[in-house]
Amino acid sequence: MGIPGKIDQWLVKRLLAVVGNPPVSVELADGSKVLAEGTKEPEVRLQLHDRKALYALLHRPTLTFGELFSEGRLSVDGDIARALDVIYSGVLSSERESGTTRRLTRQLFQKRPEQNTVNRSRENIHTHYDLGNEFYELWLDKDYTQYTCAYYATPEATLEEAQAAKLELVCRKLALQPGEIVVEAGGGWGGLARYLARNYGVRVRSYNISKEQVAYSRQRAEAEGLGNAIEYVEDDYRKITGTYDAFVSVGMLEHVGFDSYRTMGATIDRCLKDNGRGLVHSIGQNIPRPMNEWISSYIFPGAYPPTLRQMMDIFEPIGFSVVDVENLRPHYAQTLKHWRERFEANSDKVQDLFDERFVRAWRLYLSGSVSAFTTGQLQLFQVLFQRPGSTALPITRERLFANG
Amino acid sequence: MGIPGKIDQWLVKRLLAVVGNPPVSVELADGSKVLAEGTKEPEVRLQLHDRKALYALLHRPTLTFGELFSEGRLSVDGDIARALDVIYSGVLSSERESGTTRRLTRQLFQKRPEQNTVNRSRENIHTHYDLGNEFYELWLDKDYTQYTCAYYATPEATLEEAQAAKLELVCRKLALQPGEIVVEAGGGWGGLARYLARNYGVRVRSYNISKEQVAYSRQRAEAEGLGNAIEYVEDDYRKITGTYDAFVSVGMLEHVGFDSYRTMGATIDRCLKDNGRGLVHSIGQNIPRPMNEWISSYIFPGAYPPTLRQMMDIFEPIGFSVVDVENLRPHYAQTLKHWRERFEANSDKVQDLFDERFVRAWRLYLSGSVSAFTTGQLQLFQVLFQRPGSTALPITRERLFANG
Repeated sequence: MGIPGKIDQWLVKRLLAVVGNPPVSVELADGSKVLAEGTKEPEVRLQLHDRKALYALLHRPTLTFGELFSEGRLSVDGDIARALDVIYSGVLSSERESGTTRRLTRQLFQKRPEQNTVNRSRENIHTHYDLGNEFYELWLDKDYTQYTCAYYATPEATLEEAQAAKLELVCRKLALQPGEIVVEAGGGWGGLARYLARNYGVRVRSYNISKEQVAYSRQRAEAEGLGNAIEYVEDDYRKITGTYDAFVSVGMLEHVGFDSYRTMGATIDRCLKDNGRGLVHSIGQNIPRPMNEWISSYIFPGAYPPTLRQMMDIFEPIGFSVVDVENLRPHYAQTLKHWRERFEANSDKVQDLFDERFVRAWRLYLSGSVSAFTTGQLQLFQVLFQRPGSTALPITRERLFANG
Repeated sequence: MGIPGKIDQWLVKRLLAVVGNPPVSVELADGSKVLAEGTKEPEVRLQLHDRKALYALLHRPTLTFGELFSEGRLSVDGDIARALDVIYSGVLSSERESGTTRRLTRQLFQKRPEQNTVNRSRENIHTHYDLGNEFYELWLDKDYTQYTCAYYATPEATLEEAQAAKLELVCRKLALQPGEIVVEAGGGWGGLARYLARNYGVRVRSYNISKEQVAYSRQRAEAEGLGNAIEYVEDDYRKITGTYDAFVSVGMLEHVGFDSYRTMGATIDRCLKDNGRGLVHSIGQNIPRPMNEWISSYIFPGAYPPTLRQMMDIFEPIGFSVVDVENLRPHYAQTLKHWRERFEANSDKVQDLFDERFVRAWRLYLSGSVSAFTTGQLQLFQVLFQRPGSTALPITRERLFANG
């Protein structure tokens, strides 16, 4: 082996050390193999198929790992999610030992993500959600097309059961009464609005800036005879008008952008009646970190998962009273496993719709997300709130577990 | 009526306007009566029995209202808690209308309360908790002497039932297993430790800096045959040694001081096993405001009720994963009503132990607290957490409502 080979091996060693020396081996283009310090039997085997791939990885690993994987220049032996678990755990434990890394992470975070203006939000949302309803229908649940964390009352629940259980949980938390009017911010494919109207006898006005989703939602509500109870509005949540008994937003906050949380709080304050209740359901994290670069470049532009402290920027300036916070993290790991199974079962159809690279990218994204929710890199917060001193919500949570 | 009378009346009008013109009348020493702007039939009638009382009230109302009331120079017609509800509601709604007040409040808060060093904590706690066990036994529940928010599974529950239900709720949240070891920060009169040891078969080490409480706790645990399972340590929570399956702190955070939250987080991090769980139960608030001046001068020196955002200073720097937050505000209003009933039924005994002024001060404190928790000036947060990625806690809350 020549000098370049030795340098490459040394660089891989350094890279592995930076991420906490997880039990990983890396096979280089020349066939040589590097083991992380302290590893004899690697749990994860990576291959880098060309020398340029190595240098791209070293230059900006958080971005290029995904790029190289999507291009087939980096591959993983065995289950990707398990591989990412191992790598993440290394990163997490090296952080726990090093206050420096933590401080550095916080400093990095001072560079706040760009602000999501109404126009930028529209572009961001278009990139992700307008990939085509046909694509999402291949792997989301059939009944409510929920692209958010489900709720597994039992580990054996199917995806359809768990998504219905999530919708039921949201409704029960909000303690809705027949005849009330609910406003939704970010309605997805309209599933929650249909569930609300059908099972709780409420009227719903649902805001969404994804043209394709709104068209789909309207059509489906009409087909199911719910056209009179639901109004789908193709507009930004900041443009909500009217006053409501309940505000609900499931899986939109991730796209709102931290700088706009106060605006969101003011919007809710403006539209919520005195006895109103609200629920915000969002991906979150324990420690503020920027979104993974690859995810934010290729999958979710403009997205950011807040910490619970950051979410309080919505509620505290208004003085809303937070009544209940539930962290559904393990439920999201399970949801993502179900999505990934269906995605893989339909990967040939996805490849027909797009291409091989797209399939690989989404394979990594779904697997990486399973891993992130398993290891605790990401959390899922459901926050229930009302006005201070309000007696609108029952004083115990018993309603969440009542039969019927 | 002369000029001084007119000036006094004008000043009362201004004072009432500042607190949002609640439906209040104020009778002055000369017998004249002032109604708040817009009020015809006052819901609350205050009397100021000397002119100096009026000027003291104008000078520094948040401090002197309590002083004057305790001294019998200011009196309230009818139920004090109801009177304070009316006044607080006025303040709250005038704040809702005025962003300026809110900003001002935040600015005021920049003057952080003094830091609670270990020595200062000892003094503060002595002032309040060492008033004598005999005093607290007059009006707290008989079984567990809980001086914290109870849990009313049904509105008809007695104080004893509701305090036992609170202890059960805490244990269930922590998902304790027999043989585990639990550390408690701020153990009160030892009731939670006894409940834990007796009903959950765990060993408990309980830290408390109140000498009288520790002596009482030890004696009672011995008498109930729990001496081997519980160790009561007379020391500061920051001195906790050893590692534990669970950390629990019910009603201590109010006395920790905001500047020490990070230290508290680091203490928990140091003493919690990898599969450990923790629960912090504390009075809180929706918007950061300094503690009422009178309360912090006469009742609870060094106390501060944090917002949920501020509480995150304990968890976020460590990266703890917040699993569940429950706001028990209405339960505290009910607990305080029960305490007040018993306090009033025993007020002659309290007067024998102390004096008339003490009885009046505590009457106001208990009534004011009923009002604060009814109107939403104060909240009660129970925060459950574990390490990121931990699978120690069940993924649903069903255990909280299981029979048995």
